[in-house]
Amino acid sequence: MQRWRLDVAWRGDHYVGWQRQPNGPSIQAALEAAASRITGGEPVVMEASGRTDAGVHALHQVVAFSSGAQRTPERLRAGLNGVLPKDIVVLEASAVSADFSPRRWTRRKTYRYRILNRRPRCPFRQGAAWHVRQPLDASSMAEAALRLPGTWDWASFRAAGCGAKTTVRTLESLTVRPQDDELWVEAVGHGFLRHQVRILTGTLVEVGRGRVGVREVTTIRDARLRDAAGPTAPAHGLWLVSVEVGAGPHIAGQEVR
Amino acid sequence: MQRWRLDVAWRGDHYVGWQRQPNGPSIQAALEAAASRITGGEPVVMEASGRTDAGVHALHQVVAFSSGAQRTPERLRAGLNGVLPKDIVVLEASAVSADFSPRRWTRRKTYRYRILNRRPRCPFRQGAAWHVRQPLDASSMAEAALRLPGTWDWASFRAAGCGAKTTVRTLESLTVRPQDDELWVEAVGHGFLRHQVRILTGTLVEVGRGRVGVREVTTIRDARLRDAAGPTAPAHGLWLVSVEVGAGPHIAGQEVR
Repeated sequence: MQRWRLDVAWRGDHYVGWQRQPNGPSIQAALEAAASRITGGEPVVMEASGRTDAGVHALHQVVAFSSGAQRTPERLRAGLNGVLPKDIVVLEASAVSADFSPRRWTRRKTYRYRILNRRPRCPFRQGAAWHVRQPLDASSMAEAALRLPGTWDWASFRAAGCGAKTTVRTLESLTVRPQDDELWVEAVGHGFLRHQVRILTGTLVEVGRGRVGVREVTTIRDARLRDAAGPTAPAHGLWLVSVEVGAGPHIAGQEVR
Repeated sequence: MQRWRLDVAWRGDHYVGWQRQPNGPSIQAALEAAASRITGGEPVVMEASGRTDAGVHALHQVVAFSSGAQRTPERLRAGLNGVLPKDIVVLEASAVSADFSPRRWTRRKTYRYRILNRRPRCPFRQGAAWHVRQPLDASSMAEAALRLPGTWDWASFRAAGCGAKTTVRTLESLTVRPQDDELWVEAVGHGFLRHQVRILTGTLVEVGRGRVGVREVTTIRDARLRDAAGPTAPAHGLWLVSVEVGAGPHIAGQEVR
């Protein structure tokens, strides 16, 4: 058996998210079906660095699977892309050690939330950015964002259905910056609670609208109550930008450089 | 009657092009239907600075129409966007003089042709860039492009069905530059023949593949025969980037500054 690492990207519009689910097509199922098909029908299980919600896009996700079929990385990549739907692509395939685990070896993930902040809609960014017509105060949002990182209990910023055992996470950085007619909220950390980035964004947008004060955001965080925070920003503005995978399992609490 | 200028953008995937045609939906028909609807059913004729092919996108096109209905520019813009399909948008509406004519007053148009030049496809740029897998020699293409501008007979670079009376046009500039994993071919001029930018791009890609020499492109141009040039690049990579409209009719042959 050979273990393979795949660096993949997808447009999430038509999927229920990463994970296999009975209610619709998932990225996982599409990748497993493609790998099974080109390896002569063997059952395949794909492991990702983590899940993503329905509608979320990935510029770069790391996944892995094992296969008995012999082939070069380049043939594997080309073969998978030949049978995958057009909205999923394998950017790179590489042969890795048998213990390679994107879930356990991931050091850091970067998410970007794109807010299109102008009056008219944009025909080219439908489903790719959240359209907020009201002009947002980007510097207040940036200032508020700077107050949030660190190791905290993020219970205020997690979805009702989130089943995580602990709500303590380390948010390494949170930034807001203008990018042409968009605002980009970028969050970096080892792991995130369900909807954490989207609720952080929804809360920062409340700051941008002037409904929540810059200094109020730490009070919201420290309340540890979902109701204290702003609304959940829609999934289609969220992009998994990159995943940094180390050379072995991540040890919780260990500083990552 | 008030004459209105509209600055519009659209994603061209699902349209037969700018002009009304019996075989499918056009941008012109969609804009005319929207304007007619919000002005109480009066018939509306939209004039654009020029036509675009099926599948071609516009970041910025200038169109105009006349209407008896009274309204502010802002209400007109918002009203049109409220009834237009999501892949067409009015960026700006302005009240202009009764003789305003985008077709006759246009000084200069800028087209961009996007070539995605890498092995794997991109889920986010389907229908937005031409995917060329073979690595192209961008500096040869840029050098060849520089040899082409000027006032010439462009018969080698026009579609078989092009009905233009004269094939002499002034190409103000033609450039090729890398933009991340894309190559952008940009053409600036007062007017273009049917498929001119797409055939110029197709020919430059032949240079990039090493099939046509850098210095050969002027020979191709001077042959004044369609067969001398390269293939027509697909429509979906072409973007109308901007239209510069002057303060009166364009006088042919007059230098534009």
